[in-house]
Amino acid sequence: MSPVDVQPPSPFTVDDYLARGRRVVAAAAEAGLAGVLVTPGPDLVWLTGYQPTAITERLTVLVLAPDQEPTLLVPALERPDAEAAEGVRGMRVLDWADATDPYRAATPLLRADGTYGVSDSAWALHLLGLQGALPRTTYRSLTHGLPMMRAVKGADELARLTVAGAAADAAYGEIVKVRFAGRRETEVAADLAGLLRHFGHEQVDFTVVGSGPNGANPHHEAGERVIQQGDAVVLDFGGLMFGYGSDTTRTVCVGEPTQQIRDVHEIVRLAQEAGVAAALPGARCQDVDRAARAVITGAGYGKEFIHRTGHGIGVTTHEPPYMVEGEEQPLVPGMCFSVEPGIYLAGRFGVRIEDIVTVTETGALRLNNTDHGLAVVE
Amino acid sequence: MSPVDVQPPSPFTVDDYLARGRRVVAAAAEAGLAGVLVTPGPDLVWLTGYQPTAITERLTVLVLAPDQEPTLLVPALERPDAEAAEGVRGMRVLDWADATDPYRAATPLLRADGTYGVSDSAWALHLLGLQGALPRTTYRSLTHGLPMMRAVKGADELARLTVAGAAADAAYGEIVKVRFAGRRETEVAADLAGLLRHFGHEQVDFTVVGSGPNGANPHHEAGERVIQQGDAVVLDFGGLMFGYGSDTTRTVCVGEPTQQIRDVHEIVRLAQEAGVAAALPGARCQDVDRAARAVITGAGYGKEFIHRTGHGIGVTTHEPPYMVEGEEQPLVPGMCFSVEPGIYLAGRFGVRIEDIVTVTETGALRLNNTDHGLAVVE
Repeated sequence: MSPVDVQPPSPFTVDDYLARGRRVVAAAAEAGLAGVLVTPGPDLVWLTGYQPTAITERLTVLVLAPDQEPTLLVPALERPDAEAAEGVRGMRVLDWADATDPYRAATPLLRADGTYGVSDSAWALHLLGLQGALPRTTYRSLTHGLPMMRAVKGADELARLTVAGAAADAAYGEIVKVRFAGRRETEVAADLAGLLRHFGHEQVDFTVVGSGPNGANPHHEAGERVIQQGDAVVLDFGGLMFGYGSDTTRTVCVGEPTQQIRDVHEIVRLAQEAGVAAALPGARCQDVDRAARAVITGAGYGKEFIHRTGHGIGVTTHEPPYMVEGEEQPLVPGMCFSVEPGIYLAGRFGVRIEDIVTVTETGALRLNNTDHGLAVVE
Repeated sequence: MSPVDVQPPSPFTVDDYLARGRRVVAAAAEAGLAGVLVTPGPDLVWLTGYQPTAITERLTVLVLAPDQEPTLLVPALERPDAEAAEGVRGMRVLDWADATDPYRAATPLLRADGTYGVSDSAWALHLLGLQGALPRTTYRSLTHGLPMMRAVKGADELARLTVAGAAADAAYGEIVKVRFAGRRETEVAADLAGLLRHFGHEQVDFTVVGSGPNGANPHHEAGERVIQQGDAVVLDFGGLMFGYGSDTTRTVCVGEPTQQIRDVHEIVRLAQEAGVAAALPGARCQDVDRAARAVITGAGYGKEFIHRTGHGIGVTTHEPPYMVEGEEQPLVPGMCFSVEPGIYLAGRFGVRIEDIVTVTETGALRLNNTDHGLAVVE
């Protein structure tokens, strides 16, 4: 079991970060926004490489707007940490001290009558503070105002996602060799986490092991249930490698599967194929959902497919674009997202199959490439 | 080095959670709020024991209001996880499905003209969604609308904070025996994390090791600097034990301290004493800050004390009440917070001393009780 043989990618440079910021400003102007307010979290990591030690009640915000230098406002005592980040080196840094009003410090950076995009995960505390300080300024979440801000990946990002996907695949290649029957879900989950780290992940975000009836709860993680002979087991796992996400799901069977498990698995496999096939440049996000859902509905399990078909992935494992009914965003080469239909039979078992794909000029390319058949484990 | 001998406290029951909810509804009404909206994070943990696997773009919100059953709105696919939480057992649970509008699902729970308190860390995405769905409803962050919601601890909570503090003290008692000189800050930080776990913490949140000039940055965590003979080293560490926080700081010296380090340390020690002495029931939060700051300012280091004096602690290590100029909230028995003045001499060294205290009928009681003198380490 040798580690995946990968060279660490070159770190992003201050120029990479500044170029992203310029693209965001241009896209914001095109979307009718006066600018973008970015708070700590994935947007800020992507635009600066800066991740505060903790996300707290103290306001940190990056303001990107036309005709204005990119400006990061930080708590005074976090200034040295912020200035140490690669992307911040190319930006103006302002600070505010405890016992002063951070929203007043932010107002000179904003137009009093502008509409700004704001990070989805910005705290309500801060949004309400800004709304109070500038009553005529309005805000839109970036998911609604600029949903595709991080959606189209550059080659340097795609390379990282590809490596992360290959590492997750290597982990799957090993997990099917371990013993399932008679062990607790949490034990197999711990094996999975260890494998992800072994193959290069610096962070494990989730290791779902949903055996038997637990597999019918799509958000079950892993519990104390002892896995039984004959169980279908949903394995859904991922994390970050070189700062970019992996997320893949396979459903395996402990010993010989029943005909029902075989049938349901095959329907999900075909639905996943259909979803991937629909991920063509110019198609809409909802088309991917519709294609996968049509297969499952046609087979009579429409009501048992209780979630959307996919989500984007990048510096997080869950981000726009969403493959969901009503999402009319056209697919663009460079977008990366999951295609993960499932069927959940309450009280019995569940089946889900998931790959990350990237849209190319000619169609979707899978970043997960382990076998889609129903693996039999011991 | 034996573990702290503690019995795990009895878990909180559904009745404990419901009683908290009733107190919140009463306090909200008194504060002129129509109710309280609680999103995943510490407020929700405190009110229900429920912590979703991940905090995502999918809306989860608990609505507490008079004349209305406590109601938790969750994404359909997270419903089983939510219902498994102890506190949720006593509540109504509603769900919304992917591809439907979660904000529309929330509106029947809210008064169209009410003002609601909302969790500080609620996502801007969700607040903007609610503001869009109910344009006449208004919101206040809980920090401003109901800042003391979790501030006064019950006996069952104080018991947990006391145990967490004792465990952190035990970790300090061991860390002063390890070698500092010639080792990297990150190595001592790893020792500290291991000690916190050894003494019973289930989660380590921070292990600051700020040696020499790094100690002058109050938010420095631990880096690759090799600790030198003669360094002052700020050790600030904490995490969660039985769900409740610890947070304590001592500054040690590697070998014999210079007279300047001794002098600065003594000023900070006296300032910390003064802050604790000022934490009387009926005093205001800012009085604690003023008392500590007066000592440091009087000694000529006012400009080098660049942060507030303290913060509350409970199910998080950072929450209201804040000991800061302008915070006029009176102290009430049962409040628990840090008293942590410091002096930061840029490019040279820093000194900080921190204890968690709880306000009693007669004054502050320390939950950290290791020696406040300048320990000399090797």
